[in-house]
Amino acid sequence: MTSISIHPTVDSGYRATDASFSGGTLVCNCASNPVKVGIKGDIAHNHACGCTKYWKPEGAVFSVVAVAPTENVEVLENSDKLAVVDPSALIQRHACKECGVHMYGPVERDHPFKGLSFVHPERFEGKGWAAPGFAAFVSSIIESGYDPANMDAVRARLKEQGLEPYDCLNPALMDYIATWTAKNKGVLAV
Amino acid sequence: MTSISIHPTVDSGYRATDASFSGGTLVCNCASNPVKVGIKGDIAHNHACGCTKYWKPEGAVFSVVAVAPTENVEVLENSDKLAVVDPSALIQRHACKECGVHMYGPVERDHPFKGLSFVHPERFEGKGWAAPGFAAFVSSIIESGYDPANMDAVRARLKEQGLEPYDCLNPALMDYIATWTAKNKGVLAV
Repeated sequence: MTSISIHPTVDSGYRATDASFSGGTLVCNCASNPVKVGIKGDIAHNHACGCTKYWKPEGAVFSVVAVAPTENVEVLENSDKLAVVDPSALIQRHACKECGVHMYGPVERDHPFKGLSFVHPERFEGKGWAAPGFAAFVSSIIESGYDPANMDAVRARLKEQGLEPYDCLNPALMDYIATWTAKNKGVLAV
Repeated sequence: MTSISIHPTVDSGYRATDASFSGGTLVCNCASNPVKVGIKGDIAHNHACGCTKYWKPEGAVFSVVAVAPTENVEVLENSDKLAVVDPSALIQRHACKECGVHMYGPVERDHPFKGLSFVHPERFEGKGWAAPGFAAFVSSIIESGYDPANMDAVRARLKEQGLEPYDCLNPALMDYIATWTAKNKGVLAV
């Protein structure tokens, strides 16, 4: 057994149990008056992410993050506890000011991801959401202080768990971004 | 046989013939008074690159580009024909004003690649230089107008030619960049 830890969801071997997951309620980590955010419908592109920006549970090396259409996101309770972590960032991560959990992060700027919100499915009260399908920005864990000498083991562990490792997003999303950019520049027909 | 074309060097199945390649002279495409740039010692990290910034021969979808220490680069002839393509870019690509071939591109700014120059080995007068070893920024060819519907075929063709496709740089270089960044931020010990 390898001792490489990725994230509790991944390490536990979590698998989706409900092929027709249709949303649920995200809850922050506060014992009292938790922020609650409703998500209508399924999430998409769930993945492990090594970048330094997303909320991670204590001890996790990667975050687990997915998207939902922003129009399907609604703050249900304790919205006064939310604040945007970095207003200059592309993703407007709304975090609970008390426990620090990021509850949703809409992209509002002109961008291929405009209209989507990034959410952490592990915060759903229920289960059934799709398991992570790949690992993005793997090399970036080094920027959080992870030992570069262990990267081969990290990538091997991710593959073992069925998460193909990428140092950016996966090819489908990278092609999607490039296509949007090409259309935006007039290089491809809209 | 697939009809997917990558770059003449790749399509021709070029393989290095000289394990002890020790440099040579890069020559631009001008019939008279060509720019000549001497490279002392071997090149490194030769790869196919899909980004929109590098010089490519007519009809090529990818460029082929490698690095050499800038201290090993010397303009030998017709330096007056050289101009920097984009002075604001990280890589100061010095191109021949007449034929357009990029002759060398030093990184002078504070960056993990500072002190390296990007060169196109196919411009060497001789052969023997290392063949490309991977493909970087593959999704970016879409930004040059390449049909997104053909990307699966492009990645398959690259793999067939022994060039693992990445949408950024390869893991070794991405880890190298992240390590430099972590040290620069004080997150890892220098």
